[in-house]
Amino acid sequence: MKVEYINPFVTSTRSVFATMLGWEITRGAPFVKNSDQPHHDVSGVIGLSGKAKGTIVLSLDREVALAATEALLGERPAEIGEEVVDAVGELANMIAGGAKAQLEQFAMRVSLPTVITGKSHTVQFPSRATQIAIPFESEAGPLMVEFGLVEQSTEESDTTEAATAER
Amino acid sequence: MKVEYINPFVTSTRSVFATMLGWEITRGAPFVKNSDQPHHDVSGVIGLSGKAKGTIVLSLDREVALAATEALLGERPAEIGEEVVDAVGELANMIAGGAKAQLEQFAMRVSLPTVITGKSHTVQFPSRATQIAIPFESEAGPLMVEFGLVEQSTEESDTTEAATAER
Repeated sequence: MKVEYINPFVTSTRSVFATMLGWEITRGAPFVKNSDQPHHDVSGVIGLSGKAKGTIVLSLDREVALAATEALLGERPAEIGEEVVDAVGELANMIAGGAKAQLEQFAMRVSLPTVITGKSHTVQFPSRATQIAIPFESEAGPLMVEFGLVEQSTEESDTTEAATAER
Repeated sequence: MKVEYINPFVTSTRSVFATMLGWEITRGAPFVKNSDQPHHDVSGVIGLSGKAKGTIVLSLDREVALAATEALLGERPAEIGEEVVDAVGELANMIAGGAKAQLEQFAMRVSLPTVITGKSHTVQFPSRATQIAIPFESEAGPLMVEFGLVEQSTEESDTTEAATAER
């Protein structure tokens, strides 16, 4: 995966947090995630597909997820429930929307977001995709954006489809 | 969401398990998932986007994930590690590929899969999307496929993109 693909995810994440929550977040050094997995409490996952396919994961610890939901809604939720799921799903959706707009050469669209809750889960990509992790520091604590992006030939896409469609 | 959208996910799941693992799995009654969340140990998540947007989640308990990986690779992995992540990611990918081929009117493509591990996590959709859960019974135990699908206007897609691109 090309290094220049990192920047759209960084700038989109920073602008979504600034615009939606009023948080100025600072970026740490991106790294390639391997088997030494960070664990998280809440993750928003959203896919991208078009001339490339990708996925974006926004992972937060419990406290950061609660603070982010409070910044969005004006009221702190008592627990990790529906309000937090909606808030984290919408943040992931907007980060994906901003990143795909900067990667317009791939004409990607976003999927529906899902939100994972559960203490100390990890989100991994299958081994064929490079998983870039970008740590950020916010006023409520650390958060992480992970993404993968694979440029695909039309041929590859059609082969997969044909193979499963036949059955 | 229309009831006729359920069948492509059912038939695709059954055919992928039959073809890839040699498992004949039986379907239970689909239901709309709400706040009473089932918990799982391993989940493969993959997005779909095009003229509709969606997401598919294949969730397995630890034992079923290990048995499925063994059926795929011929050897039982010692733990939930890279082999299980790859196997569950590929199963989710193939289920998505089969379902989108049957929903060709939406011209959807698949995103990159992600695989969530962590004891007793839940996968939720933000409240604007209906989350249909389809339980299946396999020779190794129960498993679940959850999906959502939203038909979208081009207008909605463009508005989201424009809003985030400006920042």
